[in-house]
Amino acid sequence: MSGKSLTSFGFCPLPIFDHKRIVLGHGSGGKLTADLIDKIFLPAFHNPILDKLDDQAVLTIGGTRLAFTTDSFVVTPIFFPGGDIGRLAIHGTVNDLAMSGARPLYLSAAFILEEGLPVDDLRRVIESMRAAAAEAGVQLVTGDTKVVNRGKGDQIFITTTGIGVIEHNVSISADRACPGDKIILSGYIGDHGMTIMSQREGLEFESAIESDCAPLNGLVTAMLTTSPANDFIHTLRDPTRGGVSTTLNEIAKHANVGMVLDERAIPVRESVKGACEVLGLDPLYVANEGKLLALVVPGMADAVLDRMRQHPLGQDAAIIGEVVETHPGMVLMKTEIGGTRVLDVMFGEQLPRIC
Amino acid sequence: MSGKSLTSFGFCPLPIFDHKRIVLGHGSGGKLTADLIDKIFLPAFHNPILDKLDDQAVLTIGGTRLAFTTDSFVVTPIFFPGGDIGRLAIHGTVNDLAMSGARPLYLSAAFILEEGLPVDDLRRVIESMRAAAAEAGVQLVTGDTKVVNRGKGDQIFITTTGIGVIEHNVSISADRACPGDKIILSGYIGDHGMTIMSQREGLEFESAIESDCAPLNGLVTAMLTTSPANDFIHTLRDPTRGGVSTTLNEIAKHANVGMVLDERAIPVRESVKGACEVLGLDPLYVANEGKLLALVVPGMADAVLDRMRQHPLGQDAAIIGEVVETHPGMVLMKTEIGGTRVLDVMFGEQLPRIC
Repeated sequence: MSGKSLTSFGFCPLPIFDHKRIVLGHGSGGKLTADLIDKIFLPAFHNPILDKLDDQAVLTIGGTRLAFTTDSFVVTPIFFPGGDIGRLAIHGTVNDLAMSGARPLYLSAAFILEEGLPVDDLRRVIESMRAAAAEAGVQLVTGDTKVVNRGKGDQIFITTTGIGVIEHNVSISADRACPGDKIILSGYIGDHGMTIMSQREGLEFESAIESDCAPLNGLVTAMLTTSPANDFIHTLRDPTRGGVSTTLNEIAKHANVGMVLDERAIPVRESVKGACEVLGLDPLYVANEGKLLALVVPGMADAVLDRMRQHPLGQDAAIIGEVVETHPGMVLMKTEIGGTRVLDVMFGEQLPRIC
Repeated sequence: MSGKSLTSFGFCPLPIFDHKRIVLGHGSGGKLTADLIDKIFLPAFHNPILDKLDDQAVLTIGGTRLAFTTDSFVVTPIFFPGGDIGRLAIHGTVNDLAMSGARPLYLSAAFILEEGLPVDDLRRVIESMRAAAAEAGVQLVTGDTKVVNRGKGDQIFITTTGIGVIEHNVSISADRACPGDKIILSGYIGDHGMTIMSQREGLEFESAIESDCAPLNGLVTAMLTTSPANDFIHTLRDPTRGGVSTTLNEIAKHANVGMVLDERAIPVRESVKGACEVLGLDPLYVANEGKLLALVVPGMADAVLDRMRQHPLGQDAAIIGEVVETHPGMVLMKTEIGGTRVLDVMFGEQLPRIC
């Protein structure tokens, strides 16, 4: 079902999975990435922390629970409306920490620069990282710089790694998704991905699209303090590569639960819808860089939603569906016209080098 | 003095520092790298932890002292005698943790793969990382994979970030170097750099040269437990990019102390000497990946040296010089023929993409 069902959603042509060589789809965050992880990385490194496959590891050191996460950023173009590779590198890692309920504290940054990169471009990226770190309240405490020959890199790649401390009595993980949980989405989807694609394709739309790149740690803190009770948020995930659909599929498969979404409840800007139509893409598979999905126990969902809407980054938050016992591992969506469609994980790559 | 003095050591041609564009020398670990850090990175991110400019940040979280370090690895070729990019990525980060006296615990790994990379090469690198992690006693707990288009990367870049815990009551840092300290080198220098260069140049020597890539955390533990006393090791540093000379210069400048080395005491293999002569290089500027420099209080230096020599990775350790009050910021070397020469930091790049 997997590969085939996607063709009907405008994914054409399907990338050919050549098991002998790496293809762009292996970096998409979709099925090919999962394949690489399952077949090559996990068998080698397999351990209880890694095996959870959350976007961050949770470590206990000296009695303190820490979150630890890393991401390389290879987005092209490196400057785009609403952000740049530096802002993305800071907030992407801040967000992966926040998705465990951690308070992000310290970041490292490792740069791979291509010979010939204008120093002014580097300065601009660094200044953006400084501002982004200040905005998120994190400190950059260590780093590294390598330079590769012209034609052996692409301007600038940045790998940020973060450490945060989990202070709340929470256990937030994909495998805690539970039938009955409400699925909350924090706002409009597809802004980041369509911004990058529009830039690359040279498309202009009536209303400009801007990346939603933003640090979500403040929003998560607001959500966690909705009530003095603990453990009302089971899962948090930021739907980056592969979008909302891929992220929810990963959670559904990991926790062996089903999900039912309501298409009418999912906020998509008209400009993003338009851009997606032009390019034959589905907003549900398009990357976001300032949005989160939360799986919340039903009795607390409305209170969490209210709290989110009071935060600037959650004012368009909506309950978009729920976790169910039926069809474990599958995400279904009730469409606007009254049908039901299966949302699968992205197969290959829809949008390479989106982050 | 700086730039000029190097021409006489076989550094020719000197790279032109074009302030408008990044050149390979910015990634050398020498003077141009320091320039980039001083002029672009530090002004933006400046904070007390980063400003120490050690190879790792020391953080206190929940009362526990942690070491935190990151490095990108872009070495070419990715496979070489004695190791490969995967082994280097694990041990390089393990070593940076160990140089603070920390016990390395957890690593992250972020991969930037070039489209077209043979999956078998990736498997071989991953298997090497698995073995290297097991050898060093660390766990890889989180990761990331990105793929860039053919011609926008170079097979595989790996960024590893590590967390370790500082359990001993030590404060090991470049700024603690103190007149009187003995300078101990753990073994033969230049093996890694000359292995890579020989591979690239297609040179063959009578006795094969192999990279010294190895995890130094076991050796450091042995050194720290030489005596129940504390604080007899002031500084530890692994002389990677830029070699012994650049590393000692950094320490001398940071602590504002002088150093005097004895050329006859510095262990260099004949094969490495020969390769350096052919290529016009100086072993003191060539990268090592399994060696350390220790600055030890004089009363403990012999005991630490004895302890090191009992360890497989320290059996050729030697006291190569001492820290002095005179000529602060400068490293002098008494040569074999009885003269004195100034050892400066490497100016541009001697060996690009060595790690």
